[in-house]
Amino acid sequence: MLSEEEIIHKLKQQFPVPGGIGDDAAVLPFSDEKSYVITKDLLIEDTHFRRKYVDATSLAHKALHVNLSDIAGMGAKATYVLLGISIPNNAEHYINEFLQSFSENCKASGVVLMGGDTTKSPDKLFISVTAIGIAEKANLKFRNGARVGDIICVIGPLGNAHLGWQALENNLQGLLHFKQGFLKPNAKILEGQWLSSKSEVTAMMDISDGLFIDLKRLCTASNVAGEINLDALNCTLEFNDACEYMKMDPIQTQLLGGEDYGLLLCVKSASADLLQEFLSFFGYPLLSIGVILNDKKGKIIFRKEDKPALLHLRPFSHFGEL
Amino acid sequence: MLSEEEIIHKLKQQFPVPGGIGDDAAVLPFSDEKSYVITKDLLIEDTHFRRKYVDATSLAHKALHVNLSDIAGMGAKATYVLLGISIPNNAEHYINEFLQSFSENCKASGVVLMGGDTTKSPDKLFISVTAIGIAEKANLKFRNGARVGDIICVIGPLGNAHLGWQALENNLQGLLHFKQGFLKPNAKILEGQWLSSKSEVTAMMDISDGLFIDLKRLCTASNVAGEINLDALNCTLEFNDACEYMKMDPIQTQLLGGEDYGLLLCVKSASADLLQEFLSFFGYPLLSIGVILNDKKGKIIFRKEDKPALLHLRPFSHFGEL
Repeated sequence: MLSEEEIIHKLKQQFPVPGGIGDDAAVLPFSDEKSYVITKDLLIEDTHFRRKYVDATSLAHKALHVNLSDIAGMGAKATYVLLGISIPNNAEHYINEFLQSFSENCKASGVVLMGGDTTKSPDKLFISVTAIGIAEKANLKFRNGARVGDIICVIGPLGNAHLGWQALENNLQGLLHFKQGFLKPNAKILEGQWLSSKSEVTAMMDISDGLFIDLKRLCTASNVAGEINLDALNCTLEFNDACEYMKMDPIQTQLLGGEDYGLLLCVKSASADLLQEFLSFFGYPLLSIGVILNDKKGKIIFRKEDKPALLHLRPFSHFGEL
Repeated sequence: MLSEEEIIHKLKQQFPVPGGIGDDAAVLPFSDEKSYVITKDLLIEDTHFRRKYVDATSLAHKALHVNLSDIAGMGAKATYVLLGISIPNNAEHYINEFLQSFSENCKASGVVLMGGDTTKSPDKLFISVTAIGIAEKANLKFRNGARVGDIICVIGPLGNAHLGWQALENNLQGLLHFKQGFLKPNAKILEGQWLSSKSEVTAMMDISDGLFIDLKRLCTASNVAGEINLDALNCTLEFNDACEYMKMDPIQTQLLGGEDYGLLLCVKSASADLLQEFLSFFGYPLLSIGVILNDKKGKIIFRKEDKPALLHLRPFSHFGEL
C-alpha cells in the first residue's frame, strides 16, 4: 500500500511549485499584500468516523474544523468553504441534521459556504470539504522555516482524541472529555492568526496525525532534526488515569495520538516574552517541549531528566491514515 | 431521499451570496479586473464508475475534465487543482496509474496540482477534485443571464455518454465511440473561453446531467422558460443505429442522457454571425436548438415540424444523481 508520504512525494516531484503540495494548505496569489490559502480534507465513514457513535452535529463540526485547522496552521483566516457530500440511501435524517449544523458552524466561524457537489453513495457517507482562507503574505507560516536552536512549542491537547476514539470504538462508558476531543475538535483559529503575526514564529503547522509524525514532517521540510523533552509533556492526572484504565502508555499516547488539531510551531530561542504574552492573551500556555537540532534531516530524539532518552515508539495505526 | 436540488436550495437560503451556490462554480474576488472561480466534483466508485470497466487512465482524465468542464462553463481558464483520494486496500496498481495519469492530464491542460488529501477507504475508491480558474470579471458567464427571445445553443455530443455507459453496464461489444464518450469526456475548455469573451452570450453552463435537466436549471435561474426544437437535435445515423440496437429512443436519449460535458448557452437573437464564426474557428457547429420564452419559470416545451409537440419524458436515473 502506498503511504500518504509516498503519494505526496510522487506528486510533489511532478509539480515542484512553492507553496504547493506538502504544507497544510496551498497558496494562491491574491494581491500584493495578501494570499489565498486552500486546503481539502476528506472524512470517510468507517475510516474516520462511524455513524453509530458520531452524531450528525459532531460530524458537521469536525468536517469544518479539520479544514479550519489547516487554514489556522498556515496563519490565515478562513473565508469560504465548499462541501462535497456523497450520501447513502439510509441517511436522510442524518444528512438533514448534518447540513443544518454544517451551515450553522460555517456562520459561527465567519465562513461562507460557496458551493460543492452532492451525489449518491453506494453505501458509505463520504464528506469532502475544501476551505479557503486569506492571509497577509508576510505572515504566512510554512513547515520549512525552523532553524537550529529554535524552541519547539505546541498548543492544544495531545493524545486526548486518540483516547476518546479508543473509548468510542471499544464502547467504554465515561471518558466524556476525551470522547468530546475526538468528536468535536476545535481548530485553533484565533491562536493561529495571533501567532502568524509574530515574527518570532519561524514555522507552524497543525497537529493532525500526532506530535511525533507531524514534528518529523516539519523537521524534514526544514532540513533539521528535533529533540522532544519528555518531561515537558503535560500529562494531567485525568489523562494518566484514563491511560491506565485503557492500558495505554501516557507518553506514547501523547507522542503518537492523532486528531487533536492543536498547533505545532517553532519560535526563535530568545522568545520567552512570546510565551508569556500568549499565556496572558489566551489564558493557557504555549507549551515549550523541545528544541531544533543540527542533525540528520527529520530525525527526532528524546530527552528525559536532562539526559538523552531512548524510547521505543510503537506507532498505532490511525483511523484513516495510509 | 433529498434531491440535489433540495440540498442546493436549502444551503442557498443559508448563504445568499452572489456568485455562490447554484452555478457551475463559485466566484471569489481576485483583482479589479479578474475573479477566481472554484468548483468541486466527486467521483465515487460504483456510483459514478466501476473499476472493472473504467481503467485508471480514463478515470484520471474524467476526474479532471468534469471539473474543467465546470470551469469552462463559467468562461474561466483553469489554473490549479487539489486532489482528494480515499483508497481501498486492493487498489495499489490502479492508484499508481491513476496518479501518474492525473498528473499528466493536469500538465496537458496547463493546470498545477497544488495539494489535497489522501486517506484509506473501507472499500470503495472515492475521488474528490477541486479546480480553480481565473476569468476576466466582465467575461464571467452565469446561468441567470438568459432573456426572452435568446437563442438556445449547445456544443458537444448529446446522449453519447449515456449510450456508452449503458453499453458498458450491460457488457455489450462494440459501440466504442459511445463508450469513449462516457469514459473520457473532453471538457470544452477552449470553446468556453472563446464564448465567454462574446457579449452576445447571455448565459452559459456545462451539460453534466442532460440537456433537459440542465436547460431547466438555466431557465429557472434566469426566470424564463425554454422551447426546444426537436428537429434541430443532431441524431446521426450511427447514434440512431446504436439507439435501435439498445432499444432506446434517440430523442429521449439526447434530451435526458447525462455526462457528455458539452456546453449549453444562450445567445442574443440577432447573433447569426457568432454561429458562423464559431464554426469557422472550431470546425464544428454551435448548434441552435431552441429559443427562450416568456412563460412559467423553468418550464420547458417542445416544437416539432414547426408545431408545438407533446413529449412524455421518461427520465432515466443517472448514475450518481440524487
